[in-house]
Amino acid sequence: MGKVLHVPVHRRFSDLDPLGHVNNVVFHDYLQEGRVGLLRDLGLVRGLDFGQVVVKQELTHRKPLQYAPEPVIVEIWVERIGNSSYHLGYRIIDENGDLAADASTTMAVVDLQTGRPVRIPDVLRTRLNEVLTS
Amino acid sequence: MGKVLHVPVHRRFSDLDPLGHVNNVVFHDYLQEGRVGLLRDLGLVRGLDFGQVVVKQELTHRKPLQYAPEPVIVEIWVERIGNSSYHLGYRIIDENGDLAADASTTMAVVDLQTGRPVRIPDVLRTRLNEVLTS
Amino acid sequence: MGKVLHVPVHRRFSDLDPLGHVNNVVFHDYLQEGRVGLLRDLGLVRGLDFGQVVVKQELTHRKPLQYAPEPVIVEIWVERIGNSSYHLGYRIIDENGDLAADASTTMAVVDLQTGRPVRIPDVLRTRLNEVLTS
Amino acid sequence: MGKVLHVPVHRRFSDLDPLGHVNNVVFHDYLQEGRVGLLRDLGLVRGLDFGQVVVKQELTHRKPLQYAPEPVIVEIWVERIGNSSYHLGYRIIDENGDLAADASTTMAVVDLQTGRPVRIPDVLRTRLNEVLTS
Repeated sequence: MGKVLHVPVHRRFSDLDPLGHVNNVVFHDYLQEGRVGLLRDLGLVRGLDFGQVVVKQELTHRKPLQYAPEPVIVEIWVERIGNSSYHLGYRIIDENGDLAADASTTMAVVDLQTGRPVRIPDVLRTRLNEVLTS
Repeated sequence: MGKVLHVPVHRRFSDLDPLGHVNNVVFHDYLQEGRVGLLRDLGLVRGLDFGQVVVKQELTHRKPLQYAPEPVIVEIWVERIGNSSYHLGYRIIDENGDLAADASTTMAVVDLQTGRPVRIPDVLRTRLNEVLTS
Repeated sequence: MGKVLHVPVHRRFSDLDPLGHVNNVVFHDYLQEGRVGLLRDLGLVRGLDFGQVVVKQELTHRKPLQYAPEPVIVEIWVERIGNSSYHLGYRIIDENGDLAADASTTMAVVDLQTGRPVRIPDVLRTRLNEVLTS
Repeated sequence: MGKVLHVPVHRRFSDLDPLGHVNNVVFHDYLQEGRVGLLRDLGLVRGLDFGQVVVKQELTHRKPLQYAPEPVIVEIWVERIGNSSYHLGYRIIDENGDLAADASTTMAVVDLQTGRPVRIPDVLRTRLNEVLTS
């Protein structure tokens, strides 16, 4: 499974819905923060001529999240690298160490001019491979 | 596929991210609005002793959403009814009639006291069945 | 007070907080939607070389907002036009016609290169004046 | 001015708008996080029979906020204590120590049954006074 990055994400009061739990939509915001943490770690959020977009995302809730001052931990890893896309896995861990959700994303690399998928540039592929196999 | 409900959802400026598109997280908010529209249509958001929660959600992006004054249309339908859970399907349609995303959700019915899954109450099952088969 | 624009803004489930009301932060999002509606009406969101930013905002809550399928109406008008800034007034009206909040914003026109305030361009000043005096 | 509490608030990618800055609405979310931090510090978010609501808020932007991994610091203090309301002051400080915004809020204490303002309960008044005069 390679290297797993642990990204702390702090909950906000505005994450809560009328049930007093973190709303299901906000879990996807936490995934995004995990992803930003990974891309920052890779040193490669966006290149001179390519961007990265979410193509598909799947999330399964395992336990409701309450509000707490401690951050949740978004565990994130590279699961597989394709031609123009790659796959990320996640686990969201609460302040008690319990699994709140697991998830996966398919990311595509796109040409910033045309918006169309392009082959993953070598500079990004190399970095993703390091994370995948380390 | 039964009855498909069309729920208009108005975009907000704050839905946009630095790329100038509706952020991927916000698509899940649009699904939630579709779901609220469906449950309002069913007349059954929550009973005296049961609640409904998202268990699993999957979304595939088909086309970026720009900002526009017209609402997107969230098409939503009941796909399957199980014992303590049921399944919803969605399509998000933009102002040009293009498909922006499709998605599905597994909903669970839970006891409001214990939070544990319970058999779908007859009052809800009857209404879901009407939507599924109409 | 000149022309008052009425901008409908649809509430979302995610606007609600654990008290079951629209959270106070979200009122500022509604003001932003009113502002976007006004600028769209002016036909002048941003020029070739100038942008517009919020400098100061003040909001007074008059009545809590519940969730309802009807939009709130953001009434918005131009209150005063200065040299490099102008002032907007707002009232947020709920589905019963009751006043939920009133507010005001000071907007500044800035050079997009430097970010510094500049004299309101004539093309914008003319349009603001029409709204102020119509 | 009494004791100033320093509450770190972590930015999120979703705080950014198409200009690439933290959107003006989100500044009010940061104030809310500061307030939650203060109330947690007081040990008194809500009593058995009273709640606290925002009545009026005013915010002045001093400098745009970019995205950065470091938290902003929300400095928050009790400015004045009235009969049924009290006043908070804030400063939002960025990762370079620069002032991004200053703000103030009027809070009201309300009866949870009726929603009407009530005299600040002694248990809360005592704690607010400690912060005001320490």
